[in-house]
Amino acid sequence: MNPIEDILNAYKKGTLTLEAAVADLGNSLFKDLGHSTLDLDRARRNGASEVIYGEHKTADQIVDLTRTMLEHGHNVLITRTTRAVHEALAALAPESRFHADARAITCSLHEPALAETSIAVVTAGTSDLAVAAEAAVTAEFLGNRVELISDVGVAGIHRLLNRLPEIRDARVVVVVAGMEGALPSVVGGLVDKPVIAVPTSVGYGASFGGVAALLGMLNSCASGVSVVNIDNGFGAGYLANMINRL
Amino acid sequence: MNPIEDILNAYKKGTLTLEAAVADLGNSLFKDLGHSTLDLDRARRNGASEVIYGEHKTADQIVDLTRTMLEHGHNVLITRTTRAVHEALAALAPESRFHADARAITCSLHEPALAETSIAVVTAGTSDLAVAAEAAVTAEFLGNRVELISDVGVAGIHRLLNRLPEIRDARVVVVVAGMEGALPSVVGGLVDKPVIAVPTSVGYGASFGGVAALLGMLNSCASGVSVVNIDNGFGAGYLANMINRL
Amino acid sequence: MNPIEDILNAYKKGTLTLEAAVADLGNSLFKDLGHSTLDLDRARRNGASEVIYGEHKTADQIVDLTRTMLEHGHNVLITRTTRAVHEALAALAPESRFHADARAITCSLHEPALAETSIAVVTAGTSDLAVAAEAAVTAEFLGNRVELISDVGVAGIHRLLNRLPEIRDARVVVVVAGMEGALPSVVGGLVDKPVIAVPTSVGYGASFGGVAALLGMLNSCASGVSVVNIDNGFGAGYLANMINRL
Amino acid sequence: MNPIEDILNAYKKGTLTLEAAVADLGNSLFKDLGHSTLDLDRARRNGASEVIYGEHKTADQIVDLTRTMLEHGHNVLITRTTRAVHEALAALAPESRFHADARAITCSLHEPALAETSIAVVTAGTSDLAVAAEAAVTAEFLGNRVELISDVGVAGIHRLLNRLPEIRDARVVVVVAGMEGALPSVVGGLVDKPVIAVPTSVGYGASFGGVAALLGMLNSCASGVSVVNIDNGFGAGYLANMINRL
Amino acid sequence: MNPIEDILNAYKKGTLTLEAAVADLGNSLFKDLGHSTLDLDRARRNGASEVIYGEHKTADQIVDLTRTMLEHGHNVLITRTTRAVHEALAALAPESRFHADARAITCSLHEPALAETSIAVVTAGTSDLAVAAEAAVTAEFLGNRVELISDVGVAGIHRLLNRLPEIRDARVVVVVAGMEGALPSVVGGLVDKPVIAVPTSVGYGASFGGVAALLGMLNSCASGVSVVNIDNGFGAGYLANMINRL
Amino acid sequence: MNPIEDILNAYKKGTLTLEAAVADLGNSLFKDLGHSTLDLDRARRNGASEVIYGEHKTADQIVDLTRTMLEHGHNVLITRTTRAVHEALAALAPESRFHADARAITCSLHEPALAETSIAVVTAGTSDLAVAAEAAVTAEFLGNRVELISDVGVAGIHRLLNRLPEIRDARVVVVVAGMEGALPSVVGGLVDKPVIAVPTSVGYGASFGGVAALLGMLNSCASGVSVVNIDNGFGAGYLANMINRL
Amino acid sequence: MNPIEDILNAYKKGTLTLEAAVADLGNSLFKDLGHSTLDLDRARRNGASEVIYGEHKTADQIVDLTRTMLEHGHNVLITRTTRAVHEALAALAPESRFHADARAITCSLHEPALAETSIAVVTAGTSDLAVAAEAAVTAEFLGNRVELISDVGVAGIHRLLNRLPEIRDARVVVVVAGMEGALPSVVGGLVDKPVIAVPTSVGYGASFGGVAALLGMLNSCASGVSVVNIDNGFGAGYLANMINRL
Amino acid sequence: MNPIEDILNAYKKGTLTLEAAVADLGNSLFKDLGHSTLDLDRARRNGASEVIYGEHKTADQIVDLTRTMLEHGHNVLITRTTRAVHEALAALAPESRFHADARAITCSLHEPALAETSIAVVTAGTSDLAVAAEAAVTAEFLGNRVELISDVGVAGIHRLLNRLPEIRDARVVVVVAGMEGALPSVVGGLVDKPVIAVPTSVGYGASFGGVAALLGMLNSCASGVSVVNIDNGFGAGYLANMINRL
Repeated sequence: MNPIEDILNAYKKGTLTLEAAVADLGNSLFKDLGHSTLDLDRARRNGASEVIYGEHKTADQIVDLTRTMLEHGHNVLITRTTRAVHEALAALAPESRFHADARAITCSLHEPALAETSIAVVTAGTSDLAVAAEAAVTAEFLGNRVELISDVGVAGIHRLLNRLPEIRDARVVVVVAGMEGALPSVVGGLVDKPVIAVPTSVGYGASFGGVAALLGMLNSCASGVSVVNIDNGFGAGYLANMINRL
Repeated sequence: MNPIEDILNAYKKGTLTLEAAVADLGNSLFKDLGHSTLDLDRARRNGASEVIYGEHKTADQIVDLTRTMLEHGHNVLITRTTRAVHEALAALAPESRFHADARAITCSLHEPALAETSIAVVTAGTSDLAVAAEAAVTAEFLGNRVELISDVGVAGIHRLLNRLPEIRDARVVVVVAGMEGALPSVVGGLVDKPVIAVPTSVGYGASFGGVAALLGMLNSCASGVSVVNIDNGFGAGYLANMINRL
Repeated sequence: MNPIEDILNAYKKGTLTLEAAVADLGNSLFKDLGHSTLDLDRARRNGASEVIYGEHKTADQIVDLTRTMLEHGHNVLITRTTRAVHEALAALAPESRFHADARAITCSLHEPALAETSIAVVTAGTSDLAVAAEAAVTAEFLGNRVELISDVGVAGIHRLLNRLPEIRDARVVVVVAGMEGALPSVVGGLVDKPVIAVPTSVGYGASFGGVAALLGMLNSCASGVSVVNIDNGFGAGYLANMINRL
Repeated sequence: MNPIEDILNAYKKGTLTLEAAVADLGNSLFKDLGHSTLDLDRARRNGASEVIYGEHKTADQIVDLTRTMLEHGHNVLITRTTRAVHEALAALAPESRFHADARAITCSLHEPALAETSIAVVTAGTSDLAVAAEAAVTAEFLGNRVELISDVGVAGIHRLLNRLPEIRDARVVVVVAGMEGALPSVVGGLVDKPVIAVPTSVGYGASFGGVAALLGMLNSCASGVSVVNIDNGFGAGYLANMINRL
Repeated sequence: MNPIEDILNAYKKGTLTLEAAVADLGNSLFKDLGHSTLDLDRARRNGASEVIYGEHKTADQIVDLTRTMLEHGHNVLITRTTRAVHEALAALAPESRFHADARAITCSLHEPALAETSIAVVTAGTSDLAVAAEAAVTAEFLGNRVELISDVGVAGIHRLLNRLPEIRDARVVVVVAGMEGALPSVVGGLVDKPVIAVPTSVGYGASFGGVAALLGMLNSCASGVSVVNIDNGFGAGYLANMINRL
Repeated sequence: MNPIEDILNAYKKGTLTLEAAVADLGNSLFKDLGHSTLDLDRARRNGASEVIYGEHKTADQIVDLTRTMLEHGHNVLITRTTRAVHEALAALAPESRFHADARAITCSLHEPALAETSIAVVTAGTSDLAVAAEAAVTAEFLGNRVELISDVGVAGIHRLLNRLPEIRDARVVVVVAGMEGALPSVVGGLVDKPVIAVPTSVGYGASFGGVAALLGMLNSCASGVSVVNIDNGFGAGYLANMINRL
Repeated sequence: MNPIEDILNAYKKGTLTLEAAVADLGNSLFKDLGHSTLDLDRARRNGASEVIYGEHKTADQIVDLTRTMLEHGHNVLITRTTRAVHEALAALAPESRFHADARAITCSLHEPALAETSIAVVTAGTSDLAVAAEAAVTAEFLGNRVELISDVGVAGIHRLLNRLPEIRDARVVVVVAGMEGALPSVVGGLVDKPVIAVPTSVGYGASFGGVAALLGMLNSCASGVSVVNIDNGFGAGYLANMINRL
Repeated sequence: MNPIEDILNAYKKGTLTLEAAVADLGNSLFKDLGHSTLDLDRARRNGASEVIYGEHKTADQIVDLTRTMLEHGHNVLITRTTRAVHEALAALAPESRFHADARAITCSLHEPALAETSIAVVTAGTSDLAVAAEAAVTAEFLGNRVELISDVGVAGIHRLLNRLPEIRDARVVVVVAGMEGALPSVVGGLVDKPVIAVPTSVGYGASFGGVAALLGMLNSCASGVSVVNIDNGFGAGYLANMINRL
């Protein structure tokens, strides 16, 4: 049952004072760890637990956050992390797994229900694989089947055309590309599914760390394409799961 | 039946030469109008007919394109257009309608099947209404019910919280905001549906014609948010329809 | 015969003083009109006469420049100009022609030798036609056959594939595109000819007046692609002529 | 008594020559250390002594500056410094303290008067803590009580709403945020106190080292918000003290 | 008495159903005008009523908003507006006043309490006067005395030094400057009061519409300086009032 | 005699009170016109009177400033102005002159001493003439002979080489160029005099209003080159005069 | 014979099913290595085999790709690589060669036909040599004679003029320059051959990693100049080969 | 005597063939070292020998260049270099000197004539000293007396006013500043000498590696100020020498 309604009813019945009701409401929604304020209500509001963004955090902070989440029965996904953090979690979460290519850690207490349809993750080049892996790990962690199709960029368009049937089988398509970022436009013109475009920082010179790809994707002449931040494989995988479960 | 398979089979049977097969394939897929190459196959590939982007096109070109689409039985949506173009279409399409706020023309030969679920279009301020209207007109043209919620930006967060039930009722949420573009982050943290963020060029000084809002949305700390181009209400409405029909 | 060698020889023979030789060298190479220093030697050095860039110049200055060029027997091309300038030239050059789409004036005293091979000019959208026209007028003025193929952008890739034979027939390909500027990458991956990419300022929002297309083209993953300035149809046509005549 | 008036009066009385008066005026206002010109008059003009910005300075230069300030009876704050500099100060200032999180050194000869009201320092995420710590150390060094509230960003707005009473208790609020930098807008819409927004370089991709957060804050749709430089915790803490003491 | 507590108590007593309580809470806080959602609770939360930002709004929308605010007893300030809008308000608010230099309209039903201390508004050049006027009108509308000191930029530093006593008399200083935006740094080094820096779009060439001044102010080497958006005189005046009333 | 020393001495003698001394010091140095604070001391400090920057100023303000300057015996230069302003000055300064190409007005009560050496102003193209004219008018107004050499840009390097003797005759060279801004580098490599580079906003596409030329000049591989703001002919002419009179 | 026609004919004859035909078409055109999809058809379409871009690829991936290409009889060029990768290839390709200056590896199974005309590669400074070397290695690998002319930048224009005969001998000229990037404009004004401009990231301060040079080249006032990405020596060499073989 | 005239005369007399004359002209003007083309004619054209820019060059290349210059009797200045390079020069130039603060090496075979007037180098902060040192070493190497005045930035304007007499004694003033770069404007308003402004990359956050200071200086409201590249102490010192010797 919904803990918030419990608290409101207890307050109405008088078994809780106003001060206690406010405090309880807070405690059921998040946990203050000093350095962080863990959002415990996100699964209810957003359909998935909070995810730990590993960058800029110490191993101790991550262990803290992981312990709290596991105690509350949440599966844990840590992104932008390192093997060293995985080792620091060994005692607490021996069953956790480090995904080296995606730089992510997953630790699942329970399997999420598997979505009926699948997600395609397509990359323009071999160099875009790390970002694509982050998207794939995220989507799989959340209970989706993922089809990964690599290195089918627009300079050799027949490679893409050959893989179209697999791409069209998916319910939502994540397209990962650096350099000029043209692949989502071409894919978007060929499928009738939402395309989530992920620019990567792969490139040199006037690619400006992914800005060229980002602008290319935002200005896509194809419809049905939207864009997430540069190198944000996690965001694409998360959104793909959300759409795949509608 | 699929005209492309017809042509391939005819070629195999020998009733078509190779040259004729190639030509027929071309003719069934698009029409060369000289100035434009109208894509007649898009509905099959993408789930919706080509849309006429009105900017930079003469009234004559638009009339040409509209006539061809109507002849092929397609509903017509023209974006970024003017009342003068609407008048130029009067003889050809007397039943067409000009949407002044959205700067769009619609002309529907047949009603699209109405989607079962609805789309919410939310704006941060009154000044974002024109872009929101383009999104709404597009989504309605494609057969969706749209709930428009205006002027609930983050500087008065209680206005948003009050409208949350309506927003949560929708299957996909379009959030339109200029200035700092913070509203999609807040909405994204409160709903478990995909959020399509549309930055607008509303603002002054260091808003740089929508760049501030665009960057704010790309860097959203909320998950489930993706972004389209600045002022691209059409793109958001089109993608929302695509997701709403999955 | 080469006028510079004449002067040097005259100086060596003593029929010219050092001062006179220097002055003559100058006069044979350019003409000082006060406001402008017309380069009369360019055809010898560069293979084509100087072209008059019309922007920021008064009609009087352009008439002046045109008269001097015609007096020296040069064909005249004026770019970025207006119908009013064309009218101001009526008395001086009644046979001159105004190309409204390309915003150019041509006036040819003699036909240039026609190149044996041809140039393809390809556009992504109808809105890119003005820039493409400037490229085509320039190339034709310099004596080339031009094949113009319009509106075959990447969102409907089959439109492009259908026109490939015509494109492959050309010796050099000019590709004109705004928005994400992806078309040169796709064309570059399909032909074995040099591709000159021209970004256009067509687009809105984060296209930034052609910057998105420019960056897309500079970061092209296809080889054999080089780029000229935004909207620089003239530069592309001039370079295409140069390559076509090698 | 004011040393400048002394000098002016002495000059008027004739006990000082014009040259000596000018020299004395200089000496009472600053001290030339060769590499630096220490401003000794700042406390009178600005209400607080000069602060040593540690970046780009050698340990020797910092020791020099610290010695001079202590000799003149000033409390010393060194920002953007290291533990190694702290060790170099051990002999000179054994009572000084290194704040590792804020990367600052404080050394107070005398306690500043404690302000009656307090300052709230609020962060959007755990990763913003280092900048927040610099703000807090600065404000405390100048004699203020500081309430630090961490990780209450806009993606989980209830975390912020729960802490509002504490925030409203303060006389001035420092809000520290990276990524989209939306928190100051939300806080600014909820309190009637000045909000000093500090963008941080936390983020990735199109956050551009804090530019996205900076633009978000400059374009805030909430009133009462002003902005300091990216990662400038010191500047925010200094200004908060100035406002808190009005 | 606080209307929100009334509603909560009525709900607790049972004289209001849950649905009615929620509805009443909403109605007491804002008013939905269709195009806009007027925030009626801002004075309580923020210490001043909502202000109408005139840009991008039609005269009809502004009249609507003004009527509602006057009906609720709020004083009205409209910024970025025109004389035509003022005329449209003539019937509704005959006592309203148009400030041509500041492009603002004020209409006060009751005089705000006059703050005891004053605000200085200082400009670098004559061209910065329009932005300064917006700041001054805003601060006066909110009940402050304003001292305006014009054209004392850093290229003639003695002009500023001469006016220092007046500037030091104020409790908070607004400094308005375009071009290199250096004046806030110099003022900030000479006073012990908060300095609110307002960059203006005055300048040419590499001033980039105020970006040079904005960057100059953000990087100020003086402490106690914070910055608002380019040309945002309103924001500076509003914040100055907030600080002046602490 | 120096008025400031007079005042100081009067104060020392007691014929002036401290208050009167401060006031007199102020009055001898500048004049407060309300909208502007005219700097009357600049000729002593900077070697030339204040110049009136016409942009953003009303005709009335300019007349005011001109009258005050003429009353104090200063020659007047007004830049970035219009013929209408010149007409507004007719009664006050019938001998003033409007320079249409430079958009400047000059009015000289007395001829400045003519500098012994001259200044060369060189332009890359005809389109750069307006900026060059502003530089030339400024330098002539301040008493310099100016040699103007137009349209000798780097695409026809022999045009420049031919004019080198004239350029080398000058004591300081102003080089005005738009587009890629390469001319100052070439000139700087050929002369042993200071080169003042002026980028112009002439160009299109990726010239970004003069940014390309500005960056080109700042990165000049030639020594002895410094740069002023885009289109800042006045600044170049003023600095050239200053160097020419050393 | 063309394998694609074989497959189509086999399908027509019935010796291949539709499914098998599609699969065979795919296999003859590219090879899926999991991490990469090697384009085996590029030589036919583009006139040269695929080139391995070494950056972001592991040594294992490069060895994989090299093996596949050698097995298919392609010459191999690896760019942006390291000596360590060369060592990893020792067993597989003992005859391969590491070009330290160009950071490239070449391995040629058969000599390409030598082009009849040659390519000039010209650098502005010594620091541009690495990029020039990449261009030269690429062009030589593809069967061209290359004339390398180093350090003839515009600050000493006579150095360039002296080498003009050699430059004019080439059929196409690659010009490599950092800093202000002015050399292609000067060369373009002196030769009647296509100039491929390569901006380099050489420079400091406002060169912004090659942006200044890139903009200079895009805005070149000389005709016949096109531009590739910053530091893209490979792209220039590849395009030069393509033009040289027309 | 001038070697070029010798060659021309020999050619006229017939003692030199045309080919030999051209070759000799080249050899007397520069020396081709393979990697570099040393400009031996610069002292005649520019008034000072070529300077070796050390960045991106190997120690071997620098030794080569130094040897050639010494052999031709030129004094040598190497900028942006290291102590390791100095050690590599020990055998060749034992009398050379490494300036650690300026990161420069000087080696003078003969003392340049000392200029009669001096140069002031002024810095805003202690952190700007390295760039100022490069300017000072350059100017001293070229035969100038330099007055270095450090840490007199605008946040404590009295420090600057106190040093004004020394600054006014110089014939030309170099002002070095990072952060907001305001010091040149203030100095330019106080002296009647040319001010060479040098932006430095000192700062953080929105200083963008010196861009904020650069823009501040380009937009200076003071006249007589010109700007060199970010951190370009050498360029400022070189230009100051040129002006000081006029």
